[in-house]
Amino acid sequence: MDLKIKIEEIVEMESRFRVHFVNSLSGFKSANLIGTVDGKGRENLSMISSCFHLGADPALMGFIVRPHSVPRHTLENILETEYFSINHVNKDIIKNAHQTSARYDKEESEFFHCNLASIYEEGFKAPFVKESKVKIGLRKDEVLKLKNNTELVIGKIELVILPENCLKKDGFIDLEKSDTICVSGLDSYHGTNKIFRLSYAKKGEDLKELKD
Amino acid sequence: MDLKIKIEEIVEMESRFRVHFVNSLSGFKSANLIGTVDGKGRENLSMISSCFHLGADPALMGFIVRPHSVPRHTLENILETEYFSINHVNKDIIKNAHQTSARYDKEESEFFHCNLASIYEEGFKAPFVKESKVKIGLRKDEVLKLKNNTELVIGKIELVILPENCLKKDGFIDLEKSDTICVSGLDSYHGTNKIFRLSYAKKGEDLKELKD
Repeated sequence: MDLKIKIEEIVEMESRFRVHFVNSLSGFKSANLIGTVDGKGRENLSMISSCFHLGADPALMGFIVRPHSVPRHTLENILETEYFSINHVNKDIIKNAHQTSARYDKEESEFFHCNLASIYEEGFKAPFVKESKVKIGLRKDEVLKLKNNTELVIGKIELVILPENCLKKDGFIDLEKSDTICVSGLDSYHGTNKIFRLSYAKKGEDLKELKD
Repeated sequence: MDLKIKIEEIVEMESRFRVHFVNSLSGFKSANLIGTVDGKGRENLSMISSCFHLGADPALMGFIVRPHSVPRHTLENILETEYFSINHVNKDIIKNAHQTSARYDKEESEFFHCNLASIYEEGFKAPFVKESKVKIGLRKDEVLKLKNNTELVIGKIELVILPENCLKKDGFIDLEKSDTICVSGLDSYHGTNKIFRLSYAKKGEDLKELKD
């Protein structure tokens, strides 16, 4: 049986119920840790499920910071220092990553409190998560305020660190080999199992399943 | 062994290799079909992997349209009629969904060419995908042009249709029950297996795994 839920009913939902409901609607989401540091050397780490691809040339990624959300420290640090890292959450660090969403003060490093190690790369200001297998270093390109007071942060990719055996001949990165997981709703974590890769779609041609 | 790939090397990559590489970096992505229709009744359907949550109150979702990409017809239709639907791709319609990324003319309906059925709900202008189990009806709220000529489309949720047994007591939607899949890179499709749901994170408190 299908439910048909209209906006009037969504508005009437109990607020925590609505947050779970609407957060589930976009589908499975990436789970990433954003690493930053402020001018005084205070590190911050926050879990973000809204990272997305914005273009390959120039290589850009974006993510959303919502008003009053924990990642405000992240945004403040990016505005101050311009640098941030995006680190894939893998199956061994899910609880550590989820714990970064607790409300720590700016003086408290989530790296320390969530038992994750920060590492630095030469010439790059922001910390990376040592335990993360796929790490991306970015520099702020644009920060846009949207109508509902969310902010869209766009960064240019400067550096990518990943296990050699995850990179395939055609440039595709095998995220199951890096144990990268995904999230649904606010708090549900999922491993993945590959179904297939498909060939580039062309009008009037049958799709092929790509072999490794 | 880790690879460290700097931006200079990304710029030098062969263009198709770079597209696969950078598209893989954000992690696992949602796979959604955007349904629209123009003022003449010509339907359009396009696969989008960049849908994201923007807020629960008001209930907003967004997605990215890149320049010269196939979903331009989608954007044109949204600008003309204001309405669009977001339909989860499930394991039974992956090839149909992927095929919508072929370059069809505006006169050609991807519903027809990709063997998916369009259905309409009373009072809602845009078509939904019948075979999709989770369907969301939205009305355009804001369209923003970003610096690299991508456009961010934001819609207000007006209607949600989903199987009753997917909706949990706390508002969370079980996307494994709806057979929703996810995508990585441009063309790799994945099922998921739930690891756990975690309790709301608080400073100094241990996380609990939530039971159904």
